[in-house]
Amino acid sequence: MQGKFLVIEGLEGAGKSTAMAECETQLAARNIPFIKVREPGGTPLAEQLRLLVKAEHSESIAPETELLLMYAARAQLLHNVVRPALAEGKWVLSDRHDWSSQAYQGGGRGLSEKTLGALAEIVLKDLKPDLILYLDIDPAQGLARARGRGELDRIEQEALSFFERTRAQYQKLAAAADNAVTIDAGAELAVVTGSIRQALTEFLTRSC
Amino acid sequence: MQGKFLVIEGLEGAGKSTAMAECETQLAARNIPFIKVREPGGTPLAEQLRLLVKAEHSESIAPETELLLMYAARAQLLHNVVRPALAEGKWVLSDRHDWSSQAYQGGGRGLSEKTLGALAEIVLKDLKPDLILYLDIDPAQGLARARGRGELDRIEQEALSFFERTRAQYQKLAAAADNAVTIDAGAELAVVTGSIRQALTEFLTRSC
Repeated sequence: MQGKFLVIEGLEGAGKSTAMAECETQLAARNIPFIKVREPGGTPLAEQLRLLVKAEHSESIAPETELLLMYAARAQLLHNVVRPALAEGKWVLSDRHDWSSQAYQGGGRGLSEKTLGALAEIVLKDLKPDLILYLDIDPAQGLARARGRGELDRIEQEALSFFERTRAQYQKLAAAADNAVTIDAGAELAVVTGSIRQALTEFLTRSC
Repeated sequence: MQGKFLVIEGLEGAGKSTAMAECETQLAARNIPFIKVREPGGTPLAEQLRLLVKAEHSESIAPETELLLMYAARAQLLHNVVRPALAEGKWVLSDRHDWSSQAYQGGGRGLSEKTLGALAEIVLKDLKPDLILYLDIDPAQGLARARGRGELDRIEQEALSFFERTRAQYQKLAAAADNAVTIDAGAELAVVTGSIRQALTEFLTRSC
């Protein structure tokens, strides 16, 4: 049987790592075989692209370049890791996926829905996550948390307005989706973890 | 006045470097200001992508990954170098451009015209070369020349049938184009150079 594809999405400092850890605990407790991946990255070449896209460069990066690098990394990860794992019946737990491109490069950078849609068609084909946990947070709050953890990368150094557009696009995607749960990630950690556990438990009860 | 965009296309060993040199000589002789670029490459980031896409990797490279890396490099080169130069009135002489993707990743790797068309729309927008010199050569002859020059990169190591599909796609593009001249690159060097000089002279007479 095909494995399930679970995705965690959200802004910097929304608590994606904590959510990933909670999902791992739940899957392990049910003896579900799974792998975890992150985007951009997850294969040797995709990790090199991650470094390139997040680094500061001596030249400005065109919005289309950034977008195409994200989808190049995604194509590689899906082809070499995610699709084979799902076909073997393993579940895949992904830290970010296609919504990140739609939110950051679409909402944030202002690239068109048509452009994003064309790339999704080329790279995702008929792949669709079974569950997306979207951790919704006010960008000012999320960035303050992220800053507390250390230096910000090239994209994380954008202005607050960039992240506000990114969040608005995330919220639009979540409102239209039939495979997503929005978690209020601005709440206390114990409350957020409880919401993630509940959403996952409901999904697992439906799926297993 | 907007500069002109001249492109040299063709398989490995077709004589693109010789053609570039002949074009440079002709432009310099007419005091036309120009820059030369190569694809993939031509900016610091695009050159890093060139190394990545041509290198051997510990994992197989998905056709879509290869294609998206080529267009990421192209987006960067067009955004940061080619469009600004043309806008300043400089001519741009490019060793490979969009036809290489259509021929190698389309014809060679079998990616669809729809996929190639979508990427061209995102990255090229309304940019179209003023002149494409397509150096047509039998792949066996071209590869023998390229092998004589040294080691072949990841893509150059493909089977002969890959390059036959690539050439067929080049020929299809050339037959349909209103901005291209096909040069028989299998002829003697002096004859090929003469053909290039003639095509360029005709273009320059029309354009200047």
